[in-house]
Amino acid sequence: MAIFVALRSPELEVLGLTIHVRQRAHPSRHAQRAALHLLETVGRTDVPVAEGSHVTIKNFPAPVTKPVSQSAAAFLVEQATLHPGQVTVVALGPLTNIAQALELDPSFAKKIRQIVILGGAYSVNGNVNPAAESNIFGDPDAADTVFTCGADILAVGINITQQVIFSDADREKLEQSDSKYARHLCKILRHYFDYHRDVYLRKDADREKLEQCDSKYARYLCKIMGIYFDYHKDAYFIKGVYLHDPTTLIAAVNPSLLTYTEGVVRVQTVGITRGLTVFDNTKKRYAEVTPWTDKPIVKVAVTVDAPAVVELMMQSA
Amino acid sequence: MAIFVALRSPELEVLGLTIHVRQRAHPSRHAQRAALHLLETVGRTDVPVAEGSHVTIKNFPAPVTKPVSQSAAAFLVEQATLHPGQVTVVALGPLTNIAQALELDPSFAKKIRQIVILGGAYSVNGNVNPAAESNIFGDPDAADTVFTCGADILAVGINITQQVIFSDADREKLEQSDSKYARHLCKILRHYFDYHRDVYLRKDADREKLEQCDSKYARYLCKIMGIYFDYHKDAYFIKGVYLHDPTTLIAAVNPSLLTYTEGVVRVQTVGITRGLTVFDNTKKRYAEVTPWTDKPIVKVAVTVDAPAVVELMMQSA
Repeated sequence: MAIFVALRSPELEVLGLTIHVRQRAHPSRHAQRAALHLLETVGRTDVPVAEGSHVTIKNFPAPVTKPVSQSAAAFLVEQATLHPGQVTVVALGPLTNIAQALELDPSFAKKIRQIVILGGAYSVNGNVNPAAESNIFGDPDAADTVFTCGADILAVGINITQQVIFSDADREKLEQSDSKYARHLCKILRHYFDYHRDVYLRKDADREKLEQCDSKYARYLCKIMGIYFDYHKDAYFIKGVYLHDPTTLIAAVNPSLLTYTEGVVRVQTVGITRGLTVFDNTKKRYAEVTPWTDKPIVKVAVTVDAPAVVELMMQSA
Repeated sequence: MAIFVALRSPELEVLGLTIHVRQRAHPSRHAQRAALHLLETVGRTDVPVAEGSHVTIKNFPAPVTKPVSQSAAAFLVEQATLHPGQVTVVALGPLTNIAQALELDPSFAKKIRQIVILGGAYSVNGNVNPAAESNIFGDPDAADTVFTCGADILAVGINITQQVIFSDADREKLEQSDSKYARHLCKILRHYFDYHRDVYLRKDADREKLEQCDSKYARYLCKIMGIYFDYHKDAYFIKGVYLHDPTTLIAAVNPSLLTYTEGVVRVQTVGITRGLTVFDNTKKRYAEVTPWTDKPIVKVAVTVDAPAVVELMMQSA
């Protein structure tokens, strides 16, 4: 969805897509194939896709186009060097490629205009576990390197993106569109809606326990509760999906739809909170030097005009 | 202040004070001497003080009374065993003593009525560093043991206690009281007010930089800014001190002055966020088992009736 928004934003020239490779025993080429397939679908095979490896999987038809031979990091450095001060990196996955670009060329931080990061959970629970957000959790060491590299960084956490909900109603509207973007989006969205229902529905464990009880009070209670549970599902459950990635892309294009605070972000790289982002608003003078002291300041989004983001998303489809 | 509130609360019988010993090369007996001295000041030398070591420091006159010979942990276990289901432990320091009580007697968690903990920073920055609150930071391993021990636990974090401000005006009112509690409190408060001004005043670094500039614009700006800075200090700075400990004591006596949420708290014990508390509200189903999964539920305070707490504090003096 985010890539679609990017391709459909007249303000943007999409220089390329770089793909994050998961550090697994059998690295999956899912993301790369999905990206190539997506570009074919909308006839934008001119956009380079930079990555590396060659294992394939089955979820998408085999794309005809090929990724460029450059590594993602080399591609990032090349583009930043070709267009100094003009390139915005929109980072929608773990930050491995960007950390590698910084290693390849320490001046990368100063050459790019901005890094807009979908990453972190600021003052809210994570989505991989209570501490960590998925993209940061994917490579905490890379994330800490990037957050402290001195580049102009704008972080959009799930505290922001979970406010931007693409509803069942929005989806029905989208299904009536006959653009090829909309058709492909609707296909992708089906899986995402199913996933969402799975992980965010609250547990009915207490009710199930009550149903196993055979007192007449319990039976009566269960009957009443059925109605109340239905009401609750209707009234409180998110009927839709979070627009994590599109919101971040839109933050890069229309920064005025969000507000920001400034401070230092460090990432915990070990222990039970591995992948946790801790933002220091720098308002208190700590008695001693801390791991946040004198590190570069980054911007972290604190509010978002959610309806405007959804509307822009719909317009791009 | 918290101990004063406890001694002056008719709802409470103070069974004893246990003192946390800092793990330093030269352990300081400051807290123990302060506690003994405080009890002498108000004529309550009947309250036992449990601790261990013998090094002394100078801040308070040498107390005449002595701590009991039992260790803090043994004292806690003894009292919980003597009064099963009736003892509330109000933990206002690092949780070492309580973790040791749990080690000494694994049934301690079930014998005590409740542990009310001043500890943690929930959805806000810490006060030792951006991640950690002081009491948890003092012994993160002990804190993780206590939070997951299965006892009835109520945690009051600095997100709560930093809302409860004892103002300059409150202090002036207190100074007019002639109770011995009030007189001793005013003496203590002087140091605390000074400390507060030191650590929470914002940095004027930008202004100082501007003052070194010698353009006439800068000079004019500095003149205007002086007025604005003064206004800001008046309008925005906390004129007073945070009532961390008294608020926690009052939460134990008047729990209805706060509201609570329930979930699992784990403490990070290593790395840059050592001492960080992460609360899981258990609303999301995570894909995999996390360090929070199936751990005991505790209560964490989310709101406080701050004016009522300050009023109670004043009444105790």
